[in-house]
Amino acid sequence: MTFLHTLARYPAILSLAIIAAGPAAAEEGMWTFDAFPAKSVRDRYGWAPDQAWLDHVRKSAVRLTGGCSASFVSSAGLILTNHHCVASCLFDNSTAQADLLDKGFIAARREDEKLCPGQQAEIVSAIADVTGTVQNAYKGMSGEALTRARDAAIAKVEADGCPDRKTTRCQVVTLFGGGQYKLYTYRKYSDVRLVWAPEDRAATFGGDPDNFNFPRYSLDASFLRAYENGKPVKPSDHLTWSPRAPKQDELTFVVGNPGSTARLWTQSQFAFEREVRLPITVAVLSELRGRLIAAMETSPEKQREGLDMLNGIENSLKVYIGRTKALNDPDFTGRLAKAETDLRGRSGGNAAIGDPWKDVSAAVQDYRKLYLPYRFITPSSDLYGYAEALVMAAKEKAKPNSERLPGYTDSALPLLEKQILDKRPLYPWLEKLQLSWSLSKAREYLGVDDPDTQLLLGKESPEQLAERLVSQTRLSDPEYRRQLWEGGLQAIEASKDPLIQYALKLEPRQRALKRLVDENYQGPLTAAGGKLAEARFAAYGDALYPDATFTLRISYGQVKGWTERGKPVPYSTTMGGTFDRATGSAPFDLPRAFATHRSEIDPGTTYDFVTTNDIIGGNSGSPVIDRSGAVIGAAFDGNIHSLGGNYGYDPSLNRTVVVSTDAVQEALEKLYPAPWLVTELKAR
Amino acid sequence: MTFLHTLARYPAILSLAIIAAGPAAAEEGMWTFDAFPAKSVRDRYGWAPDQAWLDHVRKSAVRLTGGCSASFVSSAGLILTNHHCVASCLFDNSTAQADLLDKGFIAARREDEKLCPGQQAEIVSAIADVTGTVQNAYKGMSGEALTRARDAAIAKVEADGCPDRKTTRCQVVTLFGGGQYKLYTYRKYSDVRLVWAPEDRAATFGGDPDNFNFPRYSLDASFLRAYENGKPVKPSDHLTWSPRAPKQDELTFVVGNPGSTARLWTQSQFAFEREVRLPITVAVLSELRGRLIAAMETSPEKQREGLDMLNGIENSLKVYIGRTKALNDPDFTGRLAKAETDLRGRSGGNAAIGDPWKDVSAAVQDYRKLYLPYRFITPSSDLYGYAEALVMAAKEKAKPNSERLPGYTDSALPLLEKQILDKRPLYPWLEKLQLSWSLSKAREYLGVDDPDTQLLLGKESPEQLAERLVSQTRLSDPEYRRQLWEGGLQAIEASKDPLIQYALKLEPRQRALKRLVDENYQGPLTAAGGKLAEARFAAYGDALYPDATFTLRISYGQVKGWTERGKPVPYSTTMGGTFDRATGSAPFDLPRAFATHRSEIDPGTTYDFVTTNDIIGGNSGSPVIDRSGAVIGAAFDGNIHSLGGNYGYDPSLNRTVVVSTDAVQEALEKLYPAPWLVTELKAR
Repeated sequence: MTFLHTLARYPAILSLAIIAAGPAAAEEGMWTFDAFPAKSVRDRYGWAPDQAWLDHVRKSAVRLTGGCSASFVSSAGLILTNHHCVASCLFDNSTAQADLLDKGFIAARREDEKLCPGQQAEIVSAIADVTGTVQNAYKGMSGEALTRARDAAIAKVEADGCPDRKTTRCQVVTLFGGGQYKLYTYRKYSDVRLVWAPEDRAATFGGDPDNFNFPRYSLDASFLRAYENGKPVKPSDHLTWSPRAPKQDELTFVVGNPGSTARLWTQSQFAFEREVRLPITVAVLSELRGRLIAAMETSPEKQREGLDMLNGIENSLKVYIGRTKALNDPDFTGRLAKAETDLRGRSGGNAAIGDPWKDVSAAVQDYRKLYLPYRFITPSSDLYGYAEALVMAAKEKAKPNSERLPGYTDSALPLLEKQILDKRPLYPWLEKLQLSWSLSKAREYLGVDDPDTQLLLGKESPEQLAERLVSQTRLSDPEYRRQLWEGGLQAIEASKDPLIQYALKLEPRQRALKRLVDENYQGPLTAAGGKLAEARFAAYGDALYPDATFTLRISYGQVKGWTERGKPVPYSTTMGGTFDRATGSAPFDLPRAFATHRSEIDPGTTYDFVTTNDIIGGNSGSPVIDRSGAVIGAAFDGNIHSLGGNYGYDPSLNRTVVVSTDAVQEALEKLYPAPWLVTELKAR
Repeated sequence: MTFLHTLARYPAILSLAIIAAGPAAAEEGMWTFDAFPAKSVRDRYGWAPDQAWLDHVRKSAVRLTGGCSASFVSSAGLILTNHHCVASCLFDNSTAQADLLDKGFIAARREDEKLCPGQQAEIVSAIADVTGTVQNAYKGMSGEALTRARDAAIAKVEADGCPDRKTTRCQVVTLFGGGQYKLYTYRKYSDVRLVWAPEDRAATFGGDPDNFNFPRYSLDASFLRAYENGKPVKPSDHLTWSPRAPKQDELTFVVGNPGSTARLWTQSQFAFEREVRLPITVAVLSELRGRLIAAMETSPEKQREGLDMLNGIENSLKVYIGRTKALNDPDFTGRLAKAETDLRGRSGGNAAIGDPWKDVSAAVQDYRKLYLPYRFITPSSDLYGYAEALVMAAKEKAKPNSERLPGYTDSALPLLEKQILDKRPLYPWLEKLQLSWSLSKAREYLGVDDPDTQLLLGKESPEQLAERLVSQTRLSDPEYRRQLWEGGLQAIEASKDPLIQYALKLEPRQRALKRLVDENYQGPLTAAGGKLAEARFAAYGDALYPDATFTLRISYGQVKGWTERGKPVPYSTTMGGTFDRATGSAPFDLPRAFATHRSEIDPGTTYDFVTTNDIIGGNSGSPVIDRSGAVIGAAFDGNIHSLGGNYGYDPSLNRTVVVSTDAVQEALEKLYPAPWLVTELKAR
């Protein structure tokens, strides 16, 4: 809901890559289901999935609104995903007395399964092309007017597409930066419950130091279950559970929702990223990381209460640091530049295309001036996030659907409502820490005398303001949030809650900045995006994949190690290897269940393995599927070379890291026993 | 002594600049006293200092080994410098009961003046050219052999130059990256005591948010006194105290010790800085800043104990973030590139010069591979710094002078001994915080499986190792340090102290890495440095200034505001302006004495002012001198545009920020009264 919330709950993965704007090479590509490159796959592997296979895995694939991917693996709505995708759920269901994140969780009976706040499971039921409808709505327009017209068209398509907003969700997806618009219709299940999760250390063995590295020894797996009307869902399709070791070179498919990539960006966008956004992001997040680490050290309670956020921050930081490295690697940026030069060369003289690169560059120049206020005008904290969403929703709901901000249209409101109203624990010290940090960074980057700093702080210091707002707000009470949500604008404006009043005070400036950004940046970018897509299709045909958009994609690849400084890295690890890697000190301390059950574990069981599939953050929890359509693992990480994949993909080095179904089944049988789940998984 | 110690006690300043490798323009330049550009100054201002004037200010100028500049301002050894240059001394002399940093300090009698640990005052008494001697020593050599031969020659020149190491210090300074070597002889005073300092808030009003910004409202001034044999020193020269407002456009000289600049670097060095060193430095320091902020919030004691370090970190971070911004500004880097192209063009075809740019580039390429281990093999903490210095000194002292590492030659040992043996308080929590931070960053950047990480950590976590080393070492006891210092190698090797043992364990690898760096980077850089200097002198004549080296320089300029986005910024602030800027919340809370004495202060007194002088970190505390040779202020900051001055200088925007003698006298008379000091300052 807020910047941080998104970060903490949006695991991301990267890669140091080769090709950017040109056509996809080798295993590169995060393909949409309506444009699967069957011919390329068949040419390469002598086999390719048919439409029935594709339909089946699509209907089995689950998007989790917390920012992850997953899949149905039983006829009773059982969902396989990563442990780190349910860490927030474990955390939200924990107390100082019952630390589910630390100990893990096994629901002995269906009625013990625990609701995951804010979590919703979504399955793609249809994809329709609405490019003409949306593009025609803004034809000939520019700037803010273009953005408004586009948003209005999208709101209408979504509202018309899903009259039943209780069980379906419609979402228009912008592909190729405005080159295509597709209407995705989802069957949704907003009651998602926790079924099984190992102890934290089994999933996070090696912690941040091993994150984005391989070999890994991680049981980053868990099970959820979708419910509807209080009963487990019977999905139309689910994947066959195949607890087996992967074979060298075997063909694998990853089906999931890569969050976002920037492979089709222009040079001016890369420059802005390298010169402005990344340096600021790494600096401010590093400080937050430090503040949190030190605050957590002061008590065991804070150690527990801060862990989920810390994991999220450290994951994000590793991603941003990896991106910084990629964009500061002259070889890498040279290839990005070459790809753009190639496309520009092929498009030269095409009057219909013109010079969208120049338009993007001008928009980025304008955005450089708006970036700092736009970024820092919104403070970070979950409680502030509630306040802002409540204020904005109250104001937006009073308008016709087609005039609302994108996050507040009829099609968007049900999930927002759920996220605001679901009960979850909040810790005042964490809220104050985030809020005072974000306010002090706003003052640092905008300057003391800047009007936006003065709007944010008044005469208070960041620490005083955070203390006052957090200690006096009632927004941690879900019942109070419900009153404000249902009471609408009248209730909001009558509220004496200091955070609501604060959000009301900031709102006009936030809107004004958004309008400026729409006028000078988003609008021009959308217009140029259409031209750039035209240029690409003209130059390379339509065998292209769009940048990731946290919508369903399929990538193909193979089980394969790689060569690191002349030394081969094997494609898999074994569960027994964990005992060799353990040092006794965190985060390399042996998971308790590994110590207890050492003699029972088959040490040769494949634990984690790597494939050449092209994925990125958001793909976490994606099923890794074999040729037969069975699931053989859940993707949970990338290797170190994959840091940079935001901008491109290198098939010789980039790897997806997967926890094997073989290891999960071993854990279900011996480490964190739930034999009834094994039975459920085995049933056809 | 350690990385951090240096940072925390080495205030630095920057600037967004124009000219790099070419000849100095306008007020640009940090000139050595043996090459003052009198003609340029006379041509520009119709007047220039004569030799007597220059000799007088040189003999009045003081270098403080804590990393600052200063000047004698009375015949009884009174020294003017910045408050932030004595903050560590105030801190070291504080206890929870008597917080001198917070409250300030006034010694009512000479015998109350307090020793500043590690601080030494140094006055340049002679400068001699030893270029031939040193360059001939390594003629025809390369790599590590070159470095060794050069260091041996320097050690000999220094030892021969200063047979009396009790009162003199000899230092060979490398100018133009190896193009010139000069022997600086100093009269030194190793007993420096605190005389007067205002309360912290008066000096740090506006805190980190206002640091490197102008207008400032800061009383960043203090007085020290040099002693010898228990008596105040009678310096041969001191500056006349002139408590007056500066005049618009008046000519000003800044005499002090700029720490380091990189204006003569080549493109490959700038690239390494931008792509590797700065991103890592900003990320790790930001995390340290966050850890410290959160740890300090847990108690008033920690708030006090951590403040000095936090100020140092925040100052450094602002510098590095400013440098990042400068090197990510295409206009700025374009000018740097153009300057190099110009010099290369003028040097083309000169066979004696060859292609030193290529040699530097090759050395930098090699250094990229060594950088991470070389940087992270030395953990950060004051206690570890003692251990490392004790171990290294014991091993080096056993060798002939000419074979020792540079920091351990006969000429270097007296100051090192003082720094190790001077008593100062150390706080275990701060030591653990630094140590566990630096070890965890080593693991993060080198990787878990790296042999250096394993050498640093063994099977312990960073937190466990830091806890064990800090809680068990005896090195916080100065008497124990003296025993080890005097006991030499035998005592070191017999010591059971875990930090000494740890430093002994790391030492061989630290030496091996240093050898690799000397062989592949420093050696080639020194060789190329000579060629680059030759190229510069051939192209632009010898009216050039060398990069800063924390040795005495003089810069000339004028009292002058500047234009900020079309709006003029006046050149000075008044003390009365403080009351308008105060908000009541830290760091904008009114200094207590300002509140108490409001009615007595003359609100129109010039507080801080700006000049066009070209300075950088290390210049803090430098006297700002008028045409008559009188001191009218102490430089303490740069404006926001001066962030970047590490690489170049822009006369239209870069400004030195100065606290006026007028304000200091007002403070001495009304705010923190010490009328006897006013009397001492007035006496001729």
